[in-house]
Amino acid sequence: MTSSGQPKNADILIHDAMVLTMDEERRFFENGSVAVSGDEILDVGPAEELEGNYQARRTIDGRNKILMPGLVNVHTHAPMNIYRGAADDLPLREWLYDHIFPLEAAFSSKLENLKAGLRLAIAEMLLSGTTMFKDMYFFTDELAAVVAETGMRAMLSEAVFDNATPSNGGGDKTLDYIDATIRNWQQHPLVRQGVAAHAAYTVSPELIVKAKDLARKHDTMFSIHLSENQWEVDTIRAMYGVTPVKHLENLGVLDRQTLAIHCVILSDEDIAILANTHTGVAHSPQCNMKLANGAAPVPDLLKKGVHVGVGTDGVASNNDLDMFDEIRSMSLLHKLTSNSTTVLNAREAIEMATITGAKAIGYDDRIGSLEKGKKADMIMLNLDKPHSKPFYNVYSSLVYSLRSSDVETVIVNGEVLVDQRQLQRMDLSAVYEDIERVAQEISAFQRRKQAR
Amino acid sequence: MTSSGQPKNADILIHDAMVLTMDEERRFFENGSVAVSGDEILDVGPAEELEGNYQARRTIDGRNKILMPGLVNVHTHAPMNIYRGAADDLPLREWLYDHIFPLEAAFSSKLENLKAGLRLAIAEMLLSGTTMFKDMYFFTDELAAVVAETGMRAMLSEAVFDNATPSNGGGDKTLDYIDATIRNWQQHPLVRQGVAAHAAYTVSPELIVKAKDLARKHDTMFSIHLSENQWEVDTIRAMYGVTPVKHLENLGVLDRQTLAIHCVILSDEDIAILANTHTGVAHSPQCNMKLANGAAPVPDLLKKGVHVGVGTDGVASNNDLDMFDEIRSMSLLHKLTSNSTTVLNAREAIEMATITGAKAIGYDDRIGSLEKGKKADMIMLNLDKPHSKPFYNVYSSLVYSLRSSDVETVIVNGEVLVDQRQLQRMDLSAVYEDIERVAQEISAFQRRKQAR
Repeated sequence: MTSSGQPKNADILIHDAMVLTMDEERRFFENGSVAVSGDEILDVGPAEELEGNYQARRTIDGRNKILMPGLVNVHTHAPMNIYRGAADDLPLREWLYDHIFPLEAAFSSKLENLKAGLRLAIAEMLLSGTTMFKDMYFFTDELAAVVAETGMRAMLSEAVFDNATPSNGGGDKTLDYIDATIRNWQQHPLVRQGVAAHAAYTVSPELIVKAKDLARKHDTMFSIHLSENQWEVDTIRAMYGVTPVKHLENLGVLDRQTLAIHCVILSDEDIAILANTHTGVAHSPQCNMKLANGAAPVPDLLKKGVHVGVGTDGVASNNDLDMFDEIRSMSLLHKLTSNSTTVLNAREAIEMATITGAKAIGYDDRIGSLEKGKKADMIMLNLDKPHSKPFYNVYSSLVYSLRSSDVETVIVNGEVLVDQRQLQRMDLSAVYEDIERVAQEISAFQRRKQAR
Repeated sequence: MTSSGQPKNADILIHDAMVLTMDEERRFFENGSVAVSGDEILDVGPAEELEGNYQARRTIDGRNKILMPGLVNVHTHAPMNIYRGAADDLPLREWLYDHIFPLEAAFSSKLENLKAGLRLAIAEMLLSGTTMFKDMYFFTDELAAVVAETGMRAMLSEAVFDNATPSNGGGDKTLDYIDATIRNWQQHPLVRQGVAAHAAYTVSPELIVKAKDLARKHDTMFSIHLSENQWEVDTIRAMYGVTPVKHLENLGVLDRQTLAIHCVILSDEDIAILANTHTGVAHSPQCNMKLANGAAPVPDLLKKGVHVGVGTDGVASNNDLDMFDEIRSMSLLHKLTSNSTTVLNAREAIEMATITGAKAIGYDDRIGSLEKGKKADMIMLNLDKPHSKPFYNVYSSLVYSLRSSDVETVIVNGEVLVDQRQLQRMDLSAVYEDIERVAQEISAFQRRKQAR
């Protein structure tokens, strides 16, 4: 079916793909097309309906490929990519106090190191199908410029601590820095700024409230690591007599614009609080497993209507930023711990990695699904590999068989950033050169430490 | 350092790679080389020691790559690849009785279908770094010829049931078929035959003993699904008054040449029995999670000296044959369920996927490590990707960051079967054509079933 009138102009037309929209009705077009104009999706529908309706500057053949929304990684510490694999399989406190903290003290205060880690992280995320990441780390004003160069979408959140951080003196100094940073990036089409408090055991109640107030003032997201493990729950209970979730509720900082990261150890009351306050949750199953923290009660949270997104966390704990790997682990984990083969089915896993993740961080007005008027953030996966055959069900394939290396095309804000698995904007050899320099310094530091 | 004498002839010399030998001392050469002659490894060592000592017909540059033993997948149902993704996220009995069994009844008795599935499986395994698989299914005589064509190493085990199977009448008829099959393949360099009994709840004690006797007669492996879930334990206890492991011990069929598949639900006595009888164990963590069966007590088994290998199981339950994915899940799973960050560390995971797996199936005299005199089964992974950088530790990288798509070169029995990620012997388009035909029939069958 072609239109009777003149074809409309489009910048990109992807045609004859299997189009998984993740829209409200979860429409799936076995043979579909998507038209893009500028940074926006112009049209989505059956290929035969769009055919002839659009005159596109660029057409992309989608045959034997799945086109879907770009994945939304709701929790990362991207600049920490410089520490990937530097310390693994150690007791938790030894890992943190003898390795991660000393490494951060030595290397995270140098902006060039963090830029190298962030660029590597963005390259890794784009090549594995992530088009949006929500990051918590330091130097967010300076690092936002690095993100902007790459064409990636992100929200960066400077982490507030009571103590000094690598980027500034901590406490109110960090808040002043964030206040200025948010203003600097308010108008940027791709990079936004949020506010983060590290955790309830490293940030005083007063400072948590101030940080949330700052986020409210700028109408942006507030995020905080919350109830990650039993130690944290015991510690907060000893300090304040309540669970970490109840503590934050008492402080009045839980609402639609707060993202609670981890939420592994939750009481029924905690779950009810998160649901009633419409707090978003970031779930990092691989990190929670690797650090032996437990399995977050995700099926219960979803049942109560909590928006649970998926985050890989930083590579220091999880070792990659691969969302396909993360959701496969997630789906298997909750079947095991729920003792049910039907829990966290493949469709729910894809929802969490796209539209529900977007809802958790307040981005669902612009991303998370392929719909007319939304930003053109989308990925296309090639099905022409032995592990992707045969093909019976799109959700099963995506979660249980396909992998990040099947992502062939990545479009962010209407720009093709990955084409035929090649990064279009980033110079990988320069990224590798910078990383090699930092890695050698880190290796030398570790050898010196071992020798002592 | 070069030799003083004449260089020796070699067929292949891989030079300047990071060589992870997995030999007794777990030697790792940061800059190493491996020489191959015919089907055997001629030499392994530092690159400067081998340089000049060998005149090779073919040299392969190993710079910035990890060379290691090919992965040993100790439990598959490879022909079932035709059913990948046909039924997921269903209650266990519905999945089995309403989907898998009807599919097998309709499609597994047609040899052409199984050939298509097996070829697809071998392509998938080779491209993901597996060089040896131990399979349990039907028509093992006919299907061995398919394996032989591909150049892959395998042991096939025809499954004995009390009832008829897709390939024959079951019981003694199956045993006669296996007896002939083993003779037919006794001299083949790559494909061997074992004997399998499906499980203690589908095979009578008498038939289990007969099957094991047949394996003993031919000095080959006997394998059986064992203690996969609580239902099986309850069932066997109701039938025989003991645990499945104790039942098999009572039958006298547990020894060094028996592979017990799954072993999820084990008592302390069961673990002791497996250790004392030197029974090998196949561990399939992703399948056990996806089917909500539980977490096998692998750390305890390893502590008692049991040889535990890794198997992906068939794709009907696990959806891929990816060993890298499997060992990452395995390492995370046991940290979670053991509540310890140090359990099943990256080195142990690689051991299980190589040398320990080879021990579990009685193949460690010829594969599982890179050592002079062993068969030349090895794989090389490219480190030139964002997710593989930086590089600090070879085990951490292999288990927590690298993935099957990083496997670039695969050598089996001295033959390069994958070069630059391209299959050298198999014609993928023919494999895909056959699979497409079977998949369309299966889809039509499923639609008819739904319509009823």
